[in-house]
Amino acid sequence: MKILLANPNATEAITEGCGVLARKAASPGTEVIAWTNREGPPVVDSFYADYAAGRALSRSLARWAPPPDAVVLAGFGNYGTAAVKEVMDVPVLNLAEAALAFAIPFCHRFAVLTTSPRMIPYTQDLIALLGLAGRCSGVRAVSLPPLDSTDPSPAAAEAEVLAAVEHLVAESAADLVILGGSRLSPYAARIGDRAPVPIVEPVACAVHMAEAAVRLGLRQSKLCKFAPPPGMRDPWA
Amino acid sequence: MKILLANPNATEAITEGCGVLARKAASPGTEVIAWTNREGPPVVDSFYADYAAGRALSRSLARWAPPPDAVVLAGFGNYGTAAVKEVMDVPVLNLAEAALAFAIPFCHRFAVLTTSPRMIPYTQDLIALLGLAGRCSGVRAVSLPPLDSTDPSPAAAEAEVLAAVEHLVAESAADLVILGGSRLSPYAARIGDRAPVPIVEPVACAVHMAEAAVRLGLRQSKLCKFAPPPGMRDPWA
Amino acid sequence: MKILLANPNATEAITEGCGVLARKAASPGTEVIAWTNREGPPVVDSFYADYAAGRALSRSLARWAPPPDAVVLAGFGNYGTAAVKEVMDVPVLNLAEAALAFAIPFCHRFAVLTTSPRMIPYTQDLIALLGLAGRCSGVRAVSLPPLDSTDPSPAAAEAEVLAAVEHLVAESAADLVILGGSRLSPYAARIGDRAPVPIVEPVACAVHMAEAAVRLGLRQSKLCKFAPPPGMRDPWA
Amino acid sequence: MKILLANPNATEAITEGCGVLARKAASPGTEVIAWTNREGPPVVDSFYADYAAGRALSRSLARWAPPPDAVVLAGFGNYGTAAVKEVMDVPVLNLAEAALAFAIPFCHRFAVLTTSPRMIPYTQDLIALLGLAGRCSGVRAVSLPPLDSTDPSPAAAEAEVLAAVEHLVAESAADLVILGGSRLSPYAARIGDRAPVPIVEPVACAVHMAEAAVRLGLRQSKLCKFAPPPGMRDPWA
Amino acid sequence: MKILLANPNATEAITEGCGVLARKAASPGTEVIAWTNREGPPVVDSFYADYAAGRALSRSLARWAPPPDAVVLAGFGNYGTAAVKEVMDVPVLNLAEAALAFAIPFCHRFAVLTTSPRMIPYTQDLIALLGLAGRCSGVRAVSLPPLDSTDPSPAAAEAEVLAAVEHLVAESAADLVILGGSRLSPYAARIGDRAPVPIVEPVACAVHMAEAAVRLGLRQSKLCKFAPPPGMRDPWA
Amino acid sequence: MKILLANPNATEAITEGCGVLARKAASPGTEVIAWTNREGPPVVDSFYADYAAGRALSRSLARWAPPPDAVVLAGFGNYGTAAVKEVMDVPVLNLAEAALAFAIPFCHRFAVLTTSPRMIPYTQDLIALLGLAGRCSGVRAVSLPPLDSTDPSPAAAEAEVLAAVEHLVAESAADLVILGGSRLSPYAARIGDRAPVPIVEPVACAVHMAEAAVRLGLRQSKLCKFAPPPGMRDPWA
Repeated sequence: MKILLANPNATEAITEGCGVLARKAASPGTEVIAWTNREGPPVVDSFYADYAAGRALSRSLARWAPPPDAVVLAGFGNYGTAAVKEVMDVPVLNLAEAALAFAIPFCHRFAVLTTSPRMIPYTQDLIALLGLAGRCSGVRAVSLPPLDSTDPSPAAAEAEVLAAVEHLVAESAADLVILGGSRLSPYAARIGDRAPVPIVEPVACAVHMAEAAVRLGLRQSKLCKFAPPPGMRDPWA
Repeated sequence: MKILLANPNATEAITEGCGVLARKAASPGTEVIAWTNREGPPVVDSFYADYAAGRALSRSLARWAPPPDAVVLAGFGNYGTAAVKEVMDVPVLNLAEAALAFAIPFCHRFAVLTTSPRMIPYTQDLIALLGLAGRCSGVRAVSLPPLDSTDPSPAAAEAEVLAAVEHLVAESAADLVILGGSRLSPYAARIGDRAPVPIVEPVACAVHMAEAAVRLGLRQSKLCKFAPPPGMRDPWA
Repeated sequence: MKILLANPNATEAITEGCGVLARKAASPGTEVIAWTNREGPPVVDSFYADYAAGRALSRSLARWAPPPDAVVLAGFGNYGTAAVKEVMDVPVLNLAEAALAFAIPFCHRFAVLTTSPRMIPYTQDLIALLGLAGRCSGVRAVSLPPLDSTDPSPAAAEAEVLAAVEHLVAESAADLVILGGSRLSPYAARIGDRAPVPIVEPVACAVHMAEAAVRLGLRQSKLCKFAPPPGMRDPWA
Repeated sequence: MKILLANPNATEAITEGCGVLARKAASPGTEVIAWTNREGPPVVDSFYADYAAGRALSRSLARWAPPPDAVVLAGFGNYGTAAVKEVMDVPVLNLAEAALAFAIPFCHRFAVLTTSPRMIPYTQDLIALLGLAGRCSGVRAVSLPPLDSTDPSPAAAEAEVLAAVEHLVAESAADLVILGGSRLSPYAARIGDRAPVPIVEPVACAVHMAEAAVRLGLRQSKLCKFAPPPGMRDPWA
Repeated sequence: MKILLANPNATEAITEGCGVLARKAASPGTEVIAWTNREGPPVVDSFYADYAAGRALSRSLARWAPPPDAVVLAGFGNYGTAAVKEVMDVPVLNLAEAALAFAIPFCHRFAVLTTSPRMIPYTQDLIALLGLAGRCSGVRAVSLPPLDSTDPSPAAAEAEVLAAVEHLVAESAADLVILGGSRLSPYAARIGDRAPVPIVEPVACAVHMAEAAVRLGLRQSKLCKFAPPPGMRDPWA
Repeated sequence: MKILLANPNATEAITEGCGVLARKAASPGTEVIAWTNREGPPVVDSFYADYAAGRALSRSLARWAPPPDAVVLAGFGNYGTAAVKEVMDVPVLNLAEAALAFAIPFCHRFAVLTTSPRMIPYTQDLIALLGLAGRCSGVRAVSLPPLDSTDPSPAAAEAEVLAAVEHLVAESAADLVILGGSRLSPYAARIGDRAPVPIVEPVACAVHMAEAAVRLGLRQSKLCKFAPPPGMRDPWA
């Protein structure tokens, strides 16, 4: 089985980091094809970047051939997920959808850690759109070192992520925390043992759900919302 | 006052149609600058087209100089509205926001007429995101003649739009109907007198709100969600 | 165009204050007729006063002749707004409806400042009834000097209003604040520049919306909820 | 124990009808004082009438002396209920509150029958304000003979009420129906045996709840929302 | 009238405590039959205990003969309430249903005090299922002395319960507090006078509602959800 | 990996049917241990049966040794799922949780097919408790042949299931349908090709999620709601 792991941003280092997590999660027979959306923004840190990412992503994936068996969109956001679901005939999942699917049965209320204050409203909209705002007790931001920092996840950042998780649990009564951003994913393994609640790392969740969807023969419904776009073959595409 | 009326799609005929409605609505001192998103899709009829439109739109408007006094995004959808709000320092409104603002005080429950069945879930998501799903009693689609039809709004289409409005009122108990698409806007004046409920035409609503916002000194909050994107000046923009 | 600015309470000083704001907001051709509900209570500071105000208001306005082009109800509350919508054939708007219409497109979450702790539940009910509770992050009260104070908006009150706005933003993560009371309206201009978020002053919003409604030919739907009351011509009216 | 049964409208025949039902429901030691709001409208069939009723009702009850042990407001509506709760020190209940209290434990979804199409949005607002919209599957209207009809509940009207109940059950999947109007109350006993679901008659429910509240020592919280109105002793009251 | 007061847990001391409160609340002609679910758990302090209690309770009550006139389930929880409603032909009420029925008309927002932190999510689920989450401002736990403590409600515990009530009011803006647990019920009379808001004691509420339901001829709808279980007479029952 | 597939009812034929589906879904290294809750009811077709099933199930699984790697509760319902999550240290999932997790990313609105009209409210409560009512467009029942029918899924039943799916799609605008009952699961493979929307078969979904949870190191949060029950070792257990 081939799973296309599509990083919606243009940063190879993030693609690589997600690729490591994805391959670790994948079953023996699964090939993970890590792909970087080079025409996208370096990071999805605004709605502007979301649209830049989603436009490039959906256009590139619409032309992908031969099709993979499933697509994992490796960002904790929206960035055109519905557009990709329209243009692909195979199951498409993003990190938020996969993480929430695993959070729901394992908690009373989940909280999400994100990467900057401005991504809090962005994430709240994302969760509301998925229909799960009633299960979310809070969203909080943590500062990560810059992308080009020589040490991508130093002990200081690790301590900050763990502290932010503890804060979320204390202030919002969450009993499970999702690391809501591909840059946060590598911290899951480092803080999992010390965190007071289960930590959900979305990349691995998404790989498992994608594999499962392929085996189940499931994909997005093509009846209406995710049917192929009427104008997809027009010159403007 | 200069209001930029930005059509998110690439079809000049729609820009012109909206321009006519906008100028008719505008106050004497207001100049309406109708602009076509030529790098966008011919029509926003899918999520794929939504992202194509929003990416081109937000990139073009980010570079707009000198800035207008306000921006009206002339499509009944999302297509990167939040991204445009981030990149502009002046008030930005889309047709859905303006139409709903005028619907709320004048009805018990509003309904929305849209242009194709697949835009029903798209529109439901849009209304939910604005936090107004509880006031919406239904969304229904009507078929319009193709864009290149010689007669853009023949009597047959007019009758169909009116019948769809009557259906919405009967089936969903709506007491006000919004024409949810720039292609539907020209029908408002033609069916308004015969419709059983007030018909909201969004282009004129948006021009009035934009003028008012300028006079009020109001614009999108720049505190967090709509602050300028961190990477806006990066090469990828 | 004639806009009737109806103050639901009996205090002339408030009518005058609102009149100043309304005339400043109005377009050149608009005449603002400021009217005091002399049979109403001195201030709407309870549900009891709300009903006293609304009864007198709706009875007086039902007999108003010749009709104005639109009615702005100049209180941030309910006080029989739906009753006035029933008895008038022209568009009727209250301050809350107008303020929320302008808040929705320009924020992620709005908060409302009100004039006394007991008006917090009153205001929460009002926002819930408009279907917008999901967008409201909080309501908070601030103490104003008594109505007969010689200086109606001294520097101390101004500082307190600003502090309350800052509190709302910090405690509820609001990114826009509505001044929810006609007595608070004059502070908008004084604190606007120093506030961390856009401040919505409802009187001016309502004048703009009322002018727009007249130009759009919009008014409350007369199909059902706001149809003329069956017994309006009975002796008890 | 003395229960004041306050009919919010001015129609003695309705007061008498409610009085009969109330006395039948009351415990041996309870005295039901049926009172007509003679300064109110003949019937609460609009928001205009609601405010006319509520104003007169709250003013009259504020002056009531000596106080009864509890007040039942004998209309299925709002008509200033919160205002009466402010001005009374004894427990105050309206028919909707009492009916819903008994509906909640005994059904999956309740529906409400009301007396005219325009009271459907009125009733939906009422239920939403009580926070119970999620349990309500529908509101429907039935036509009753005019108030001055010689036979207040002829067989034809009875058949129509029963048919409306059956419709509500079939169309909305309700498994309990509330007769939402004091004019509908007398039909409960007549159709109860033939109805497919439990029929809730609100007058009797309210008498039982009022008696219970007195025995429990419960009344509306006087901490904030229902505290005595600040200006109650002012001349305007 | 005979009311069966069924304690879902196996602790006789709790049955006795509830019996005292119930008999005090009951009308002269009412006989309260206090019954202990001896096959149930000593206390319902988990979902595991909830199912243990509910299974034993519903099996015992299904065989109860001759039937009482009504059943009060004397625990603030779920523990198979719907199952008991299915197997009984007489009205069945639990403490939460009765307490909420009395809270709704007498407050703006209610809060619930429960007996241990883990019962907070349990109670939130319970309130959500009743459709009343929108009226609940918070749930908080207080520690009680162990069941076998020689003094079941010492002054220290009393002070702690009062402090917890005050906390709930301050932190959640509740204006009414429900004591959500049969072990908490005896504190109502002790702290009622000193509490800043009305305190709802559910056992007495339930007895009053049960009496009223009997007199009203009301019971759970047998149309669908609470119809007798299809397999009730099978050997496994 | 060992997955315990626990059928909450006592019918071996259902266990076997689920076992077939589960083993077909399982990865090569996974051993599925199909277990029948012999002390439970023959089928969970009421709340009474739900409690009978959940009590026996949670007691049996609390004593299970050595523990499996994960538990799949093979019924589309509640039947003590939270109780099992409390008593087990390994991940526990029921069919509804797994099916909804796969429905969310692949549809706009899902609908659920259940096995009898009385299970409609039961299923609505289940979905509401999971916080997903906003994504559910409808629940509908279909009649299956009796359990002891010689042909467990004859062509007639198959046609009826397909017709019910088509009805759900047409009447509720669902674009994905979940077969909500272990007795319905075998029909998924038979009707999948002809259904107008994706059909979700919950047993296979649950096996995939359980395998994934084990690999991810995820299980229900033990912080609060699902911590081991305090009295689990007491004699009554």
